[in-house]
Amino acid sequence: MNQTVRIFDTTLRDGEQSPGATLTSAEKLEVARSLARLGVDVIEAGFPAASPDDLEAVRRIAMEIGQPHNGKQPPIICGLARATRNDIEKAWQAVSPAARPRIHTFIATSPIHMQYKLQMEPEKVVKKATEMVAFARSLCEDIEFSPEDAGRSEPEFLYHILSEVVAAGATTLNIPDTVGYQTPDEFGDLIRGIMKNVKGIENCIVSVHCHNDLGLATANALAGIRAGARQAEVTVNGIGERAGNTSLEEVVMALHTRHPVYGLDTNIDTTQIMHVSKQVSNYTGILVQPNKAIVGANAFAHEAGIHQDGMLKHQQTYEIMRPETVGVKQSRLVLGKHSGRHALKVRLAELGYELNEEEVVQIFKRFKVLADKKKEILDADLEALISDELYQPVEIYQLDGLQVACGTMGMPTATVRLIGPDEKVYIHAAIGTGPVDAAYNAMDEIIQAPNKLIEFSIHAITEGIDALGEVTVRISDSQQQRLTAQRDAAQPRTFGGYGADTDIVVASAKAYLSAINKLLVATGAEIPSA
Amino acid sequence: MNQTVRIFDTTLRDGEQSPGATLTSAEKLEVARSLARLGVDVIEAGFPAASPDDLEAVRRIAMEIGQPHNGKQPPIICGLARATRNDIEKAWQAVSPAARPRIHTFIATSPIHMQYKLQMEPEKVVKKATEMVAFARSLCEDIEFSPEDAGRSEPEFLYHILSEVVAAGATTLNIPDTVGYQTPDEFGDLIRGIMKNVKGIENCIVSVHCHNDLGLATANALAGIRAGARQAEVTVNGIGERAGNTSLEEVVMALHTRHPVYGLDTNIDTTQIMHVSKQVSNYTGILVQPNKAIVGANAFAHEAGIHQDGMLKHQQTYEIMRPETVGVKQSRLVLGKHSGRHALKVRLAELGYELNEEEVVQIFKRFKVLADKKKEILDADLEALISDELYQPVEIYQLDGLQVACGTMGMPTATVRLIGPDEKVYIHAAIGTGPVDAAYNAMDEIIQAPNKLIEFSIHAITEGIDALGEVTVRISDSQQQRLTAQRDAAQPRTFGGYGADTDIVVASAKAYLSAINKLLVATGAEIPSA
Repeated sequence: MNQTVRIFDTTLRDGEQSPGATLTSAEKLEVARSLARLGVDVIEAGFPAASPDDLEAVRRIAMEIGQPHNGKQPPIICGLARATRNDIEKAWQAVSPAARPRIHTFIATSPIHMQYKLQMEPEKVVKKATEMVAFARSLCEDIEFSPEDAGRSEPEFLYHILSEVVAAGATTLNIPDTVGYQTPDEFGDLIRGIMKNVKGIENCIVSVHCHNDLGLATANALAGIRAGARQAEVTVNGIGERAGNTSLEEVVMALHTRHPVYGLDTNIDTTQIMHVSKQVSNYTGILVQPNKAIVGANAFAHEAGIHQDGMLKHQQTYEIMRPETVGVKQSRLVLGKHSGRHALKVRLAELGYELNEEEVVQIFKRFKVLADKKKEILDADLEALISDELYQPVEIYQLDGLQVACGTMGMPTATVRLIGPDEKVYIHAAIGTGPVDAAYNAMDEIIQAPNKLIEFSIHAITEGIDALGEVTVRISDSQQQRLTAQRDAAQPRTFGGYGADTDIVVASAKAYLSAINKLLVATGAEIPSA
Repeated sequence: MNQTVRIFDTTLRDGEQSPGATLTSAEKLEVARSLARLGVDVIEAGFPAASPDDLEAVRRIAMEIGQPHNGKQPPIICGLARATRNDIEKAWQAVSPAARPRIHTFIATSPIHMQYKLQMEPEKVVKKATEMVAFARSLCEDIEFSPEDAGRSEPEFLYHILSEVVAAGATTLNIPDTVGYQTPDEFGDLIRGIMKNVKGIENCIVSVHCHNDLGLATANALAGIRAGARQAEVTVNGIGERAGNTSLEEVVMALHTRHPVYGLDTNIDTTQIMHVSKQVSNYTGILVQPNKAIVGANAFAHEAGIHQDGMLKHQQTYEIMRPETVGVKQSRLVLGKHSGRHALKVRLAELGYELNEEEVVQIFKRFKVLADKKKEILDADLEALISDELYQPVEIYQLDGLQVACGTMGMPTATVRLIGPDEKVYIHAAIGTGPVDAAYNAMDEIIQAPNKLIEFSIHAITEGIDALGEVTVRISDSQQQRLTAQRDAAQPRTFGGYGADTDIVVASAKAYLSAINKLLVATGAEIPSA
């Protein structure tokens, strides 16, 4: 049997379904580039039928990341599709430019989903799945099929539908525990049953897709792998709908650290894990808790005197992994006030950023401003500047100036100067309950784009009192969150924004403006020709 | 066999070992009160030999929380002790006032720990453990013993030492996977072996204590429980050393949600879970990531159109738990500008806060100020005010005023007015890289307590642009983090601070001052007699 587990990353599809994690097309491309560098076997780049934007983003990834690079085979680029002709056609349109395209189609197979959501008889579900797999296979050689909510489906029915789709041309069978309901023993048994009872399974790869509602996603994925699955569907930092998906870093490092137990390899370059974790957290605005396994800020920190004593005597007393293995470096001084553009460019390349000249110039300008304020510029500072400067949506409004007065003694007041789509300068002052509220009120009065602030967070990127502050905000385009049947224009959507500055009020203003710009683009506001 | 799993909460001991999670004595008492209300069977309240403060905090919990309340049996109050006479005596001194005291003693049993950390021969370890358990048993009826790093110990050696300590009087045998190295299958086998091979095991309760380094803590604990363990050692939000401990909420909700699989109960009132989660996060400053199972902000949120469609048709299509079961309520409007003190007091009691008259007066004053700025006061706002107002350390310096000017156009400047321990008023202005840096610089110049800012984060407590901002900071009392052999005065310690205000600069200043006050108390600064 194959001794390599394929890592199928769905950060850009299932991960992006996290509330408010909406990424810009440029951010998606950057994450895909990092995933390719990390060595994932498959990138699920999106759900092309969801919207023309989603289709375009997947297509761009197929064209740029899905091509051979320096003689190296690129990752498979995969698009998700419901079991309908339209979804499958859209998916094919998006992934076909890739050197190794895949279509992933799904239909629900649990009694509760078939009865209430699909309102279809089981045999009709089988027929639909078989027809649509055959149709997809007529377009593409590499077809993945998922029986949605497999974790709550009847095993006999699963064997039946999976045997039929294999006959129709499916090459990978993915088994999702859609609602995170399974325990490791149950999920292992489910995969074992499938390996034994599905006709033609010897020519397929079985895949696991687990959710973390009970905190068992990693254990369930590993139980499925022990039972014979050779693909794991995962997301970076375990982001995703509700409590998220199986974490890429946990599955990979469990297989790696406990290699003698599992006897299985992956194609992942583990030293890239921290970089991509940080990038995904920055772009989605979904923070990683300090006690997150592998990638949390404390994952390699030791506090208790007893532990520190042991660590001094022998490192392995309390450490089963080396921090370097997952790319944790001491955040180190790279550059200072007197560093030139070339030094900056070299360091950015070492960090994995391939920037063009114009982008380097842009970052260098920001770098000089920061170096005037802050003595030591660390890697983390550079990463924040890049997120802040380069991966922003089209700037319909630009922040040109901000002035704030606040404190315990009076009315917090902010004056903002924005440059609008017509190159006109708008200046407005407003008061608020605090400096951020005041700045947001002033911008709202200029831009007039109704929205609601759903989430706001700031953290310092590096240690020290003069650190760069990193702000992420999430806004919704309507006053009221509603549950609606389809993701259409009438449904409130959420938009994330990001800003970094040594002044947290300035960073907050930038983050809000970047979210507002995304909202304006999505709701079809006029985009300047420049 | 017993069908109830005892929940042993070690948030106040192993959880507090999270880097920077240091809690004040008042905070510890409040957390213990919430844990008792949650229904945990055992509270491990601390490590009394670590310092006189730690001993005193455990003793206070034993005296206040460890007593019968309204005719209800109180939780067992437990203190940790290394296998030495001194540690065990200190632990007994701390827990003896409780109605149901327990001493928990441990010694390492893995080859690597015995050789490098203890530098003791295995038979000497057995002798020491047996003698110390017998000594502890001479003081206290309820004795727990842990072979540290059991996950990497020889099973035969474990059977031997555990049989000996049972003969010497241990009543609970706790099996720690100290470094989070085990897989569920291995850990289940380990517990099964112990159930079968330890002499006298039928009179003991076997306990599991797992760490989350590979993301498997919950699965490992459940595997141990299936194999016969009837106590689980857990922390709220899974906090703890490195990637933390098994999460209380995950183990409890897995047993609850999958009751037919496990057939086991706990004594936990699940509707208290969110309250204690939020409280522990506020007091420790350790954020819960949105995709955290059970208690994350997104754990019950549905984003994808497909999911929302399903949810509308039948709630169980994508939901295996009801949010109400774990105490997630729609954050609701409780009070407004015109609400009186009685209404506030009633609502606070409903939220689980038992405040005295003086405290209610204090909170009411803050409530009125907030209600003037913010239309709707939600439960989360009240909880933040309480954290900010009541559970602060002794205030050596008080913030009396703050005035800030900042923005993109000039030098950020802050003026602070502090009232010092001598009741003297200090005013100082300073500049900085941003408004927070400026305010911190101004305070530093007054207080002169050298420290380093390690972490800084802000988030909005509720939705809406006028929300209260919640700031947590962590500082260390030295310029340099070092690994030292003992937790003594020379070692840098970290201190957390908390502040809440609608003005994030004011909240930041409060948080910093509260951390500085903790630092001053810990380093023996003069405390005002008032």
